[in-house]
Amino acid sequence: MALRHIALFRWSEGTTPAQVAEVEEVLARLPEAIPELDAYTFGSDLGIGSDTFDFAVVADVADEQAYAAYRDHPDHQAALGVIRPLLAERASAQIRTGGAG
Amino acid sequence: MALRHIALFRWSEGTTPAQVAEVEEVLARLPEAIPELDAYTFGSDLGIGSDTFDFAVVADVADEQAYAAYRDHPDHQAALGVIRPLLAERASAQIRTGGAG
Repeated sequence: MALRHIALFRWSEGTTPAQVAEVEEVLARLPEAIPELDAYTFGSDLGIGSDTFDFAVVADVADEQAYAAYRDHPDHQAALGVIRPLLAERASAQIRTGGAG
Repeated sequence: MALRHIALFRWSEGTTPAQVAEVEEVLARLPEAIPELDAYTFGSDLGIGSDTFDFAVVADVADEQAYAAYRDHPDHQAALGVIRPLLAERASAQIRTGGAG
């Protein structure tokens, strides 16, 4: 039973495409830097739903210990340093997933 | 390039474990009923984060057309009929994923 961390972001008014591109760049480096990440998907909302958030991150890890390793990893903390100043709203949850990874 | 739909729910005060179990039951039937669902994970928040939502659903489908088929499927609409009366808050996004499914 693996663990899936989900975070949705709504950007502050005035956030630029260049700032979102920088978020994507820092997140793209995390799978290589953090071996606990079994899968890592993120990206901007596609604009096909109503009242959607602007950006989503889904991190698949083995268990609570691996999640804590991801959460506290200095490269992840550095990514949060890029993300937090842009945030108007954040929604998150951690759920159990059936598979092995 | 596949599509990932993410929805987070915060339950209204007074929502019971039996009501959440009913949500899980109706969602558990969807992968068999809706062939467009390549993967479907859902469940209650594990309680390891701060200010988390209560429940998450992640649906992986091939593309926008498959997402619309899932969204509009009568069994999914019936599940929403169980979920909506319990909702205090909902957050969602649809993102592109790199893989094939």
